[in-house]
Amino acid sequence: MKIGGRHYRTIWLNTDGWSVEIIDQTKLPHRFETVTLRTCGDAARAILTMQVRGAPLIGITAAYGLCLALREDASDEAMDRAIDYLASQRPTAINLRWALDQVRAAVRNLPREQRVEAAYKRTAELADEDVETCRRIGVNGLELLKEIASRKKPGEPVNVLTHCNAGWLACVDWGTATSPIYHAHDAGIPVHVWVDETRPRNQGASLTAYELGSHGVPHTIVVDNAGGHLMQSGKVDICIVGTDRVAANGDVANKIGTYLKALAAKDNGVPFYVALPHSTIDWTLDEGRKIPIEERSADEVLKMPGRLPDGSVVTVEIAAPGSPAGNPAFDVTPARLVTGFITERGIAPASREGLLSLYPERKRQ
Amino acid sequence: MKIGGRHYRTIWLNTDGWSVEIIDQTKLPHRFETVTLRTCGDAARAILTMQVRGAPLIGITAAYGLCLALREDASDEAMDRAIDYLASQRPTAINLRWALDQVRAAVRNLPREQRVEAAYKRTAELADEDVETCRRIGVNGLELLKEIASRKKPGEPVNVLTHCNAGWLACVDWGTATSPIYHAHDAGIPVHVWVDETRPRNQGASLTAYELGSHGVPHTIVVDNAGGHLMQSGKVDICIVGTDRVAANGDVANKIGTYLKALAAKDNGVPFYVALPHSTIDWTLDEGRKIPIEERSADEVLKMPGRLPDGSVVTVEIAAPGSPAGNPAFDVTPARLVTGFITERGIAPASREGLLSLYPERKRQ
Repeated sequence: MKIGGRHYRTIWLNTDGWSVEIIDQTKLPHRFETVTLRTCGDAARAILTMQVRGAPLIGITAAYGLCLALREDASDEAMDRAIDYLASQRPTAINLRWALDQVRAAVRNLPREQRVEAAYKRTAELADEDVETCRRIGVNGLELLKEIASRKKPGEPVNVLTHCNAGWLACVDWGTATSPIYHAHDAGIPVHVWVDETRPRNQGASLTAYELGSHGVPHTIVVDNAGGHLMQSGKVDICIVGTDRVAANGDVANKIGTYLKALAAKDNGVPFYVALPHSTIDWTLDEGRKIPIEERSADEVLKMPGRLPDGSVVTVEIAAPGSPAGNPAFDVTPARLVTGFITERGIAPASREGLLSLYPERKRQ
Repeated sequence: MKIGGRHYRTIWLNTDGWSVEIIDQTKLPHRFETVTLRTCGDAARAILTMQVRGAPLIGITAAYGLCLALREDASDEAMDRAIDYLASQRPTAINLRWALDQVRAAVRNLPREQRVEAAYKRTAELADEDVETCRRIGVNGLELLKEIASRKKPGEPVNVLTHCNAGWLACVDWGTATSPIYHAHDAGIPVHVWVDETRPRNQGASLTAYELGSHGVPHTIVVDNAGGHLMQSGKVDICIVGTDRVAANGDVANKIGTYLKALAAKDNGVPFYVALPHSTIDWTLDEGRKIPIEERSADEVLKMPGRLPDGSVVTVEIAAPGSPAGNPAFDVTPARLVTGFITERGIAPASREGLLSLYPERKRQ
């Protein structure tokens, strides 16, 4: 999507043909900076410190991290070590492991001297596939927004609530939850997005608002507490969120607080959709409570970066001095609260049967 | 309660016998400062800018504001003007109007020259009554915490989740939601409090954590998004919150986000109690949806005060530049989601019948 009129992806190969460039998302929305990844360690650090985040994007970043590792040592042992190291940086998103497995499968039967080139080739394919997957999620989700718009007066906006950033900054391009929104906006359907701030890292106020604003989509930031009241007041037509892992029964792990919005949607009859690519489904887990929930640093709760009036960026302590904080990063929304899944294959109910209707090839496994 | 070992109320008469001192809660937790109110305008500004906040405390502050107005002009017209002016500063909390009506009733049949003294006398009584009311809320709520503790292993803490600040800083002393917690802690029952940060003004992380820490009560700050996950994980035994206005049917207006926690409590079988004094009940409103919801400044969402490493306090902009924000300050939790009310008279179900069982004198009205 566009920043300042120029088209960007979130990750790309530099013209040297091997080093990898990313947008440093820890600097947004205050500064737009890119960072060069030259080693597997650089990629791992970018994932851990959330310079890149979002389930699809950390998958692609990990894949490039494996390419960088293979440049230094293309043996089976080094490859396995790099995969374990990269996969361990974030425990909840399944795409990380999925993307690494894709690259491993593409290179494992090749002689060492061919592995680096094959790994880069497969990673570039994965990145392109992610763009196409997200585009198709948008095309499929667009139908939901069109249907809501058809019941409104001309010009009256479709009000979408989203949580965290499942936007193009979480993917390579388009986004998952935001892709239907961009497609609707580009198709001339009036859309307005309620952007959950998404504490503690404020990915909504920092990233979703930033990318919607850059693309010209009308939006309003609200604190995470506000969504229930907005739904009670009839101000939300549909919720669309992303996910870090979907269990085979349709339970959804996503950014902490998603469960609360799903409860409010159910209580107010607001449709609640989860947008995801196939790579986010963990067919090996029969229910969501088995998804590991990452506990992150208390500093993410107790400190906050922001801009001073002179434009400089500082980090301030915001809480009572000496008080401890807890920071679970995800929660699990039971499938019973999810109206449906929007995937690259289409829309289906949030259930084992719904998922299998989209991915019938999984029935044989 | 105590700050730095010294006992404080949130509001008190200075030794000059007429000016009023408050703790400036906009400076907490970064600095402890007090402010002197010398005019009705000072009191109104303190309420509007939230130097004082919390339904019971803004009631007492408004009452003192009326005393200060009467010092300047004790006529009926001036009194009515001051009451309307003070009551209009915050629309949601009912205690504001209630306290002003109490002072008016105490002085309206007196000659002008006796009104000032009578107003101060009645206001001091209201402040003392608030302390006693909150103490009794604590004694009554203590039974709930004792009962939970009796089902635990010795030493295992009772985990309470609270939202916003319904602590002593929201009242004159003790607090409403926190009073049972302080009583339990002082009685040697191990208590641990999950403190919702409470965006956008962070009254949980700033004020509740500050006052619990000052009193030595174990607590952990969590973002507003986390409570649902904590309840799903069995880490919350009971929720206790305050309220700004309760309708006659038991619907509860409280800080934005309360409704989401009540939904999660219901979904996980966690008891959800609302602590309140009688003055918070609006017997004239038959349901919660008629409670006016204050919309506050977008700056409260887009900016954040905090401490720099050198201890100085600055305000930073935290969101994407140019993105607008919405800021509804309260939501309404339907009575069906509330397990019960804890009042100075006892505990009752959240319903018209429950309220009337505590306040039978209202049946005749």
